[in-house]
Amino acid sequence: MQEKSPVLKAAAFFEGTEKKLELIVRPGAASLRSLSHGFWRELVQSAKADILSHIANEHCDAYLLSESSLFVWHDRILMLTCGNSRLIDAACFLLSNLNAQLQLLGDESSTTVTPINSLTSNVEQDAIAFFCYQRKNEYQAELQSSTFAEDIARLRQLISGKAMRLGHLDSHHHYLFYSDRAYQAAKEDNTCELLMYHIGGELAQYVGSDGQDLNELKTKLKLATLFTQFELDCHLFEPHGFSMNGLWQQYYISVHITPQTVLYDASVNSSAYVSFETNLDLQQYPNLLADILQLFAPVSWDLIGFNCKVATNAFPAHLCVGTASLTSEQGYTILFSHYQQLQTEVFVPELM
Amino acid sequence: MQEKSPVLKAAAFFEGTEKKLELIVRPGAASLRSLSHGFWRELVQSAKADILSHIANEHCDAYLLSESSLFVWHDRILMLTCGNSRLIDAACFLLSNLNAQLQLLGDESSTTVTPINSLTSNVEQDAIAFFCYQRKNEYQAELQSSTFAEDIARLRQLISGKAMRLGHLDSHHHYLFYSDRAYQAAKEDNTCELLMYHIGGELAQYVGSDGQDLNELKTKLKLATLFTQFELDCHLFEPHGFSMNGLWQQYYISVHITPQTVLYDASVNSSAYVSFETNLDLQQYPNLLADILQLFAPVSWDLIGFNCKVATNAFPAHLCVGTASLTSEQGYTILFSHYQQLQTEVFVPELM
Repeated sequence: MQEKSPVLKAAAFFEGTEKKLELIVRPGAASLRSLSHGFWRELVQSAKADILSHIANEHCDAYLLSESSLFVWHDRILMLTCGNSRLIDAACFLLSNLNAQLQLLGDESSTTVTPINSLTSNVEQDAIAFFCYQRKNEYQAELQSSTFAEDIARLRQLISGKAMRLGHLDSHHHYLFYSDRAYQAAKEDNTCELLMYHIGGELAQYVGSDGQDLNELKTKLKLATLFTQFELDCHLFEPHGFSMNGLWQQYYISVHITPQTVLYDASVNSSAYVSFETNLDLQQYPNLLADILQLFAPVSWDLIGFNCKVATNAFPAHLCVGTASLTSEQGYTILFSHYQQLQTEVFVPELM
Repeated sequence: MQEKSPVLKAAAFFEGTEKKLELIVRPGAASLRSLSHGFWRELVQSAKADILSHIANEHCDAYLLSESSLFVWHDRILMLTCGNSRLIDAACFLLSNLNAQLQLLGDESSTTVTPINSLTSNVEQDAIAFFCYQRKNEYQAELQSSTFAEDIARLRQLISGKAMRLGHLDSHHHYLFYSDRAYQAAKEDNTCELLMYHIGGELAQYVGSDGQDLNELKTKLKLATLFTQFELDCHLFEPHGFSMNGLWQQYYISVHITPQTVLYDASVNSSAYVSFETNLDLQQYPNLLADILQLFAPVSWDLIGFNCKVATNAFPAHLCVGTASLTSEQGYTILFSHYQQLQTEVFVPELM
């Protein structure tokens, strides 16, 4: 065989793509930030993850996790986990326990007392106004402990909702479940996820290399210019991987870099996956996503948006492979789009 | 939600993408076609499939299977299976039993007698000159009974070889294992697979519709003009699906159509998968693949070739997303290329 001499690495496969849950409580419910640190630790541990560090401001607590991030505002929770973590267990933990915990704090919106660990389904009078659970297509779905179909079967024991897949099974796609109880989202309630596959250039080589320095990486990531106002909490993983939470006013950012198993030298074929997520109003920052795409130079990327208005004209030259858009009863315009760079990539055989 | 009114169908998911094995015996070995029908039935059943029908000419036996196809020439075997069939079990059955079966027939190339069911590994003096096992990325890999990594661990107990993945895990990719014993392939030993995803147009609607007629489908497939010289063996599955083997001299063709689960009306969003495979010299039929692509109008398609020379200039407008090419020690130039149409597809949410 005439392939180049391989530089085999012993790196184990790590699933970079994230699962995500969001939960919004009704007006009048006790502040989620009043819940004990022990509650959040238990929530995170139920997903088989750990809390690494924590930053906070008057609006939000941001926890950096061993597998991604947890953000807690007064009225909402956002949790992202990657790897083989079990976010579905955390979702069931929340749906089973949150009402009782809030009532202990004096929830004003709830009219019934739900015992801890109650599995009573579809309690319309509880504090949960909106719940959403999402899974991006995994690199190796067969290594996950559950399928999305299994996850939604469990969720539907606890809360009713709609579930769907956006995109084809053989390519990038996204699974989405959201509750169907009455709720109206605020127009400014927006989030945007930019998921970048097989990043390129100098940065790609650095994040796959050994002996990285956190300050050097932060410089290469241009954090000081891209996210000037944000307080940042960064973590470099051994041997590879980077996670970051950022807070500014009620806004968050989250960046996670996962160098995939690269059997060949990373200079030949980087396969790192990078996720970026924010609730910034991108109409105020029209070049932010394009700047991030220029920085990471991915082969392909996906956008997942809730009420997210994105200008794509400054994006690198691309084909938009496919797009889905729908409006939920809660007033969320949900977008999923899959983009591909225009160059033909030369695949290097990955020996097994 | 503002999506169109869904026409839900009860169709169960069926994995259309194929696994494939090829085995070539050394000159002097007994003809594989001398082996009993019972041997081939046992081989097919070991993969959890059944023989539906059979055609033959002086060069080849072609068996149509409940899950794809088996072709047997004097010196080689080609077996394709889809669904949840276990081609790896058939591969292990062959590698464990073929030598003994051939010796019962008077194999002249083998110097040792291998007992039936022997698991002796890496017998260099046996009748097997070349062995190849391949798996295309599945739509739902998590529903398969084994991973490719598990498959090659079993194969390596029986025969040594190289294994690799071509293409990224998050998009179309192909797994390949081939033996590394000394063998030189003939230049005219070529095969080409054209794998078509999400076909479009009138044909796509017909193959997803109820009450299909085999003759009408054959007309729509233009079989009489595309494959004039071939004797064809066609089968229409209930409720959907089509398989066809064709023989002409030493050449074969094989077509398999798998309508994927379409939760919405097929007129909105066809997801049928079609595979075409042949050992015709495509330099003699330079428009064949382009004609097939025009007929099925897929959203994306892959080419897998062994010594296969393909002109892509007549293909529908496309982006070649990525390509891999390598030359094996046996003299096979192995190609994997992934193509995408240039239109942005509008994904219809698939309710779950």
